[in-house]
Amino acid sequence: MAVPKRVKFSLATLFIQAVFIIIYAIIVDYEDAADPTKSDNDYPTPKYYPMYQDIHVMIFVGFGFLYTFLYRYGYSGAGINILLGAVTIQWTLIVRALFFHELASGVRVKMSLTELINGDFNAATVLISFGALIGKTGPLQLLVMVLLEVILANLNEYIGTEHLKVSDVGGSMFIHTFGAYFGLAVSRALYRESHQSSANLRPGYLSDIFALVGTIFLWCFWPSFNGGLATDDGRLRAIINTLSSLVACVVVTMAISSLLSRRGNIEISHLQNASLAGGVAVGTCANMPIKPWGAMVLGTLAAIVSTTGYKYGSDYLASRFKIHDPAGINNLHGMPGILAACGGAVMAAIATKDNFGDSLYVIFPARTPNIVNGTVYPADRLAFDQGGYQIAALVTTLALAIVGGLLTGLVMRAPIWDAPDDQELYDDRNYWDVSEHGFPPDIATIQTGFTYG
Amino acid sequence: MAVPKRVKFSLATLFIQAVFIIIYAIIVDYEDAADPTKSDNDYPTPKYYPMYQDIHVMIFVGFGFLYTFLYRYGYSGAGINILLGAVTIQWTLIVRALFFHELASGVRVKMSLTELINGDFNAATVLISFGALIGKTGPLQLLVMVLLEVILANLNEYIGTEHLKVSDVGGSMFIHTFGAYFGLAVSRALYRESHQSSANLRPGYLSDIFALVGTIFLWCFWPSFNGGLATDDGRLRAIINTLSSLVACVVVTMAISSLLSRRGNIEISHLQNASLAGGVAVGTCANMPIKPWGAMVLGTLAAIVSTTGYKYGSDYLASRFKIHDPAGINNLHGMPGILAACGGAVMAAIATKDNFGDSLYVIFPARTPNIVNGTVYPADRLAFDQGGYQIAALVTTLALAIVGGLLTGLVMRAPIWDAPDDQELYDDRNYWDVSEHGFPPDIATIQTGFTYG
Amino acid sequence: MAVPKRVKFSLATLFIQAVFIIIYAIIVDYEDAADPTKSDNDYPTPKYYPMYQDIHVMIFVGFGFLYTFLYRYGYSGAGINILLGAVTIQWTLIVRALFFHELASGVRVKMSLTELINGDFNAATVLISFGALIGKTGPLQLLVMVLLEVILANLNEYIGTEHLKVSDVGGSMFIHTFGAYFGLAVSRALYRESHQSSANLRPGYLSDIFALVGTIFLWCFWPSFNGGLATDDGRLRAIINTLSSLVACVVVTMAISSLLSRRGNIEISHLQNASLAGGVAVGTCANMPIKPWGAMVLGTLAAIVSTTGYKYGSDYLASRFKIHDPAGINNLHGMPGILAACGGAVMAAIATKDNFGDSLYVIFPARTPNIVNGTVYPADRLAFDQGGYQIAALVTTLALAIVGGLLTGLVMRAPIWDAPDDQELYDDRNYWDVSEHGFPPDIATIQTGFTYG
Repeated sequence: MAVPKRVKFSLATLFIQAVFIIIYAIIVDYEDAADPTKSDNDYPTPKYYPMYQDIHVMIFVGFGFLYTFLYRYGYSGAGINILLGAVTIQWTLIVRALFFHELASGVRVKMSLTELINGDFNAATVLISFGALIGKTGPLQLLVMVLLEVILANLNEYIGTEHLKVSDVGGSMFIHTFGAYFGLAVSRALYRESHQSSANLRPGYLSDIFALVGTIFLWCFWPSFNGGLATDDGRLRAIINTLSSLVACVVVTMAISSLLSRRGNIEISHLQNASLAGGVAVGTCANMPIKPWGAMVLGTLAAIVSTTGYKYGSDYLASRFKIHDPAGINNLHGMPGILAACGGAVMAAIATKDNFGDSLYVIFPARTPNIVNGTVYPADRLAFDQGGYQIAALVTTLALAIVGGLLTGLVMRAPIWDAPDDQELYDDRNYWDVSEHGFPPDIATIQTGFTYG
Repeated sequence: MAVPKRVKFSLATLFIQAVFIIIYAIIVDYEDAADPTKSDNDYPTPKYYPMYQDIHVMIFVGFGFLYTFLYRYGYSGAGINILLGAVTIQWTLIVRALFFHELASGVRVKMSLTELINGDFNAATVLISFGALIGKTGPLQLLVMVLLEVILANLNEYIGTEHLKVSDVGGSMFIHTFGAYFGLAVSRALYRESHQSSANLRPGYLSDIFALVGTIFLWCFWPSFNGGLATDDGRLRAIINTLSSLVACVVVTMAISSLLSRRGNIEISHLQNASLAGGVAVGTCANMPIKPWGAMVLGTLAAIVSTTGYKYGSDYLASRFKIHDPAGINNLHGMPGILAACGGAVMAAIATKDNFGDSLYVIFPARTPNIVNGTVYPADRLAFDQGGYQIAALVTTLALAIVGGLLTGLVMRAPIWDAPDDQELYDDRNYWDVSEHGFPPDIATIQTGFTYG
Repeated sequence: MAVPKRVKFSLATLFIQAVFIIIYAIIVDYEDAADPTKSDNDYPTPKYYPMYQDIHVMIFVGFGFLYTFLYRYGYSGAGINILLGAVTIQWTLIVRALFFHELASGVRVKMSLTELINGDFNAATVLISFGALIGKTGPLQLLVMVLLEVILANLNEYIGTEHLKVSDVGGSMFIHTFGAYFGLAVSRALYRESHQSSANLRPGYLSDIFALVGTIFLWCFWPSFNGGLATDDGRLRAIINTLSSLVACVVVTMAISSLLSRRGNIEISHLQNASLAGGVAVGTCANMPIKPWGAMVLGTLAAIVSTTGYKYGSDYLASRFKIHDPAGINNLHGMPGILAACGGAVMAAIATKDNFGDSLYVIFPARTPNIVNGTVYPADRLAFDQGGYQIAALVTTLALAIVGGLLTGLVMRAPIWDAPDDQELYDDRNYWDVSEHGFPPDIATIQTGFTYG
């Protein structure tokens, strides 16, 4: 241990931040409407800022408190969440410049409200992956992950939107599916038996209520997530569809949770997580005219898949495949993301000018008819083709996430990054000076003082 | 017990959700601005969505956390709150179609942002009633209540707005007064002595802080509740009046709470609840020009009535009339709602074109002058008449709420709905698999370790 | 003790509220757009209300929960916060009328959304000062402070904006610096040795997580604070700059916290507080074109100054100067506020039409060229002058805050205001009837049951 563990963390973090500042000084400008030397008066603030703030609250309050569910890991759940989010927001603008802006031609990057939304969207991707790694990874390891994952996530989105020309307004493929399977692949690469057997791996009564704070903010603001980058009638549909999916999802989650319980009880972890799966499942087609009942069906399916996953799937993945998933991201983001991609593909395959109106070309630009010398020629791509491309984007997403996650996990295994050892798992004391009063005593040494039922 | 208790809950819930989806598939469309086949470009998103989200947070974060105040009932307080809210939002659109849309003539129902606000408003009605029943009722019983209460609440609103033509912008009559007396009537119908004497019926130090999360969000966003469906200058007055009422209310609540305390201390339950009564009390006349000082007077009166009610009223109602009210909804919603109705009636009775300007006809459509063949005839209804109609709507509200609540309570008494028995009251373990760590031990078995003062 | 302690509190509070209502009845009108008898249709609601609500949540949820960090002072931290906020909002409108409106000429005061934002801004000033006094002062003392501090704070702002004509869009001088040094001066005036040595002066594991709720809402919504009263491109820059500063600040805070720790751990109090210092540090120049990287540098400097202050500065101030600062307001608001003022002065001194465009005259009205008879004459004030005036405003702020705070502290020392005695410090039981269950036992009497690391 030449360099003490946390000196390493401090210096690495300061180095990253310094590099960000230097890069920003070189390439980042304000968007035109914020540039006082330009005369652009079309301020995006009323259009994007309120929904941006909803999304911002989802990332930092929502994910942050959702991840306080472990009884001795509340500081870390919320605190590391903030660290990863803040690094990701800054890194995203740089990475997206590489893929989506023509840096080569000398155009500088514009920091705009929509790019800040993209920053939060990438933070979501990273924080989803964090759900599979919570308590088992150190902050330095996770920073390595952020730097690599954001590159791969944007490569995937670049392929999907620029080459496959698919639609994924709420990012159910590019954010949720990618983040989930990337995180699960990392978890697989890092697997140790102690990850499952640690006595600290359990929620507490109060930590579960803190986690509900996160759940409810995520649940309330999810329509803003799915509609944040949509506009006009597409945005309004995204709001209505997402709301419709979520109300059905939470009802069905509680029903299924009770149905699968030996005593008929609901599991609080299902309410905390599976009730949000409807927001994921409707994410690809949120701006499409699926009707409220269509959204409710998606929310219902998501609740069934997700709740069942929490009940049986996570244990199976861990024991059979050594994929340990403490926050259940496969159930909340992974499988519902695949469901969303399929829903989007089906809608794409049946989309016509009749049922989509002019929004057909807004949602699927590749279906815009070609106009040459005043003559309108059919679009290069038909409805069924578009459905196929949507599925191709899902496959690309899964492939890049899994391969990228495994490779990233191998990098994260290097001893240099100071992973917690078996005695340090899921324990705030490993990274924080915790308060003397109220830190939960070791569950193994105390009488719990109550019996179930 | 032919069908196990929770299988019943699961199947009933799934059945309800399935029926909702079928009905939505048959009758619900998007509002025109969200319909891609229509050319309506007047998007309501900027006008209604930010305030809708404020209201949405009030319903799920606000009520949800306010109802975590019992020391062993946090999961249920927040969790059942979500279940009832999600069912109510879906059911409201259907029920309102019966009363407010011309279904008979073949017009389909439009899901719109304003209808979603109405969904949340009905969720408020139901969740207010839940406050009198918290911990004493099972989820199945409460779902029965939701299905019946939403019908009666909308019948009441239909009578009030369509026939009596009264104004109640923040729903102090239609939401708060109705929800409160309906809930109290149900509580009376279900009364058992154990409801009052259960050892679990007590808050905890930390659960009371969780409840404050709910209080503060309700307090902050109440201007959006009272102004959500108002427009233009009426909306701006609703914001300013509600804010004015609430700041006075919270100050006076703390003063009165201390004044009524033997040791001069403040009771946290007063701060949690009575400080919100000003939002209720100003609800009927929030969009009327009552001036900030008028709103502050209403807030002050509400604080006095509500705090006194918490101190003495609830015990009296329980011991004298067997109306047990654990969250104190009579004090927070009932009496302040009546105060609001009276305030609205007084304002209506003195409203003239001079002091109300053109908003007179926006707020009281029945006072619009008749124009026949170019000649302007006086309105059918004078100021004093309008005041009388406002009181008539209050009386109708009270009658429908109390009779409807008693009958609904009788239905809810049927053993089929699996009410909790005396040993199961106010106890999360009855519906949830609670975490082993941190569930509060039985208060009777432990030394509290401190003395007051 | 002729008048019992809390009767005094009750009567004083009721008296203040009654006086407010009387003054409002005499002088306060709606702003024109809310006045139904005026035909102003330029409603400020879409422009100001969403950001106003963000700020409102910062004041009551943000400060409120941030101040629940002491393990036995959660009710008071959040509850007294609400009381002070509600009194300040009402008092501010009256006080600002004296300084900023021409009452003498008979113009009545208009309650408007922008005045409500000013009310919340003044609440911030007061609540910052409260951070140095938390647990050591009674509510009556604090009400005395509110009444005096709001007058002095607005006098300071009046001098700064009307006479020195400086720019301070996010109030880093007028709100943060003033509130901090005013509060520290009061703390000095009230100093007793017991303030530092009380066994109750410590956080708890769960109270520290509650405090994080406040932190994260403050962190998320700070762009709305700095941009709330800005408009157009200045508002958009305020949002982007504040966000840029905060993301850098939180990363550097965690790095420095770890670097300064013997064991390399992060201190949760640094995350709770120092990560917000970037919002303060960018507050004066938030609407100026400092570029994202400039904001990130300010956020980085703020994190270094603030974290170091929490680590060493607070103890030094207490032991050396008898200035005891339990919430660390010197570190979060004081020093970062001075940094902000210097940043603003530097920007002012280099501001030209070239780099500021037309916003030069919006931000620095004194630099507007004079036009006499069609001829344009240079402005009376050059860039370098403006920088000097900005520093003059900082000096004025410090002088008024320190002298005013010391004098106010002397007034607050009078025994009549019922300060808590040595046994009553940092203890909710002194003002509240706390719940029997869950109030933390005396830390001195229990085994903590764990060892660090």
